[in-house]
Amino acid sequence: MKLQLALDAIGRREARELVEKVHGSIDILEFGTPFLLGNSLFVVGEAKDAFPGLEILADIKIMDGGDYMASLAFDAGADYVTVLGVARDETIAGAVRAAERTGKRVLADLLATADPAGRAVELEALGVYGVCVHTGFEPGAGRDQLQMLESVSGAITRAAVSVAGGISPSTVPAILAFNPEIVVVGGSITSSSDPVGAVAEIRALAENERAVP
Amino acid sequence: MKLQLALDAIGRREARELVEKVHGSIDILEFGTPFLLGNSLFVVGEAKDAFPGLEILADIKIMDGGDYMASLAFDAGADYVTVLGVARDETIAGAVRAAERTGKRVLADLLATADPAGRAVELEALGVYGVCVHTGFEPGAGRDQLQMLESVSGAITRAAVSVAGGISPSTVPAILAFNPEIVVVGGSITSSSDPVGAVAEIRALAENERAVP
Repeated sequence: MKLQLALDAIGRREARELVEKVHGSIDILEFGTPFLLGNSLFVVGEAKDAFPGLEILADIKIMDGGDYMASLAFDAGADYVTVLGVARDETIAGAVRAAERTGKRVLADLLATADPAGRAVELEALGVYGVCVHTGFEPGAGRDQLQMLESVSGAITRAAVSVAGGISPSTVPAILAFNPEIVVVGGSITSSSDPVGAVAEIRALAENERAVP
Repeated sequence: MKLQLALDAIGRREARELVEKVHGSIDILEFGTPFLLGNSLFVVGEAKDAFPGLEILADIKIMDGGDYMASLAFDAGADYVTVLGVARDETIAGAVRAAERTGKRVLADLLATADPAGRAVELEALGVYGVCVHTGFEPGAGRDQLQMLESVSGAITRAAVSVAGGISPSTVPAILAFNPEIVVVGGSITSSSDPVGAVAEIRALAENERAVP
């Protein structure tokens, strides 16, 4: 399991201080949509230079101009870029082309897809590296996370699975049971009074899960 | 008709020079998704200060966190923000709440909606200011623009209609026949060797349309 730290509603200086503390214990650093709109894609390259051991994900939720938009993120230094699963197939395929050209990765966000498992299978066929079981920010959006994770994980055969949305140490064990490749944690780390402890707690849960025979 | 100039794949300095030339002949200045990711929402306030006679649109295509994301754009100085029509109703409603609180406007982009006219009626009921008939960047995406414009215009009763996607002087007359409130022009102005002339040409077409009895 890779642990992805999402930076969304956090200032640039505070984010930098946080990543300085936890970068040795996370795998992927995500710049969320609001963070990128507030600070520009420049931060992606800045982070790549400052933390060469981290993979960087630019959550730009591509909806149009797949190749062009993905290339913007990859050129800025991102290792992963997100497209929306609700985007047109041509848009997804464009982002995948940009990824293949650069050796980078596309994750398709299943947010608001009518049939997440069915769309995940189509996205896999379109060549995405993985799909993101993302239940969204709005109230009530998270209630079906585990069910969605189960159905999507069962439907795909090759693509990696990422899980995002309101994940905290208390919800991590149930998620780990489905063995996702990437677990995305945001607010429960960035809002914690002890972010280093929160990251360590999630890491320990992942180790325990692995230790189960 | 309001003429909206979209700034997408253009550098910041070049954009500034272009807007200096044409600002007296356009109504809405749009900062497109790639421009904002490349330069941050800071440019919205900068443009509002430099061109107080223009309305500013931030095309951030909100998909999640409607209230929070719309507020980011409105706080930066935007008069209009875009949400995706494919977003969840709760997300749309959140963006509308932010608009009502600030006296600003939400436009819902119909890109990749399965039933544009049906979704436009729902979006109208959710309280958006208008809907955007947007056929997208990918090849082939623009072929149904007029048909989509006709069906959407015929379905809604209150919302404003905006039209975007590959519009040039040669395609403007057919679009104006449907009397949209906003016509969005990007590349055919930004890529023109005579952008002032291109804006004037579209303006003249709009005047002619109005003069038809």
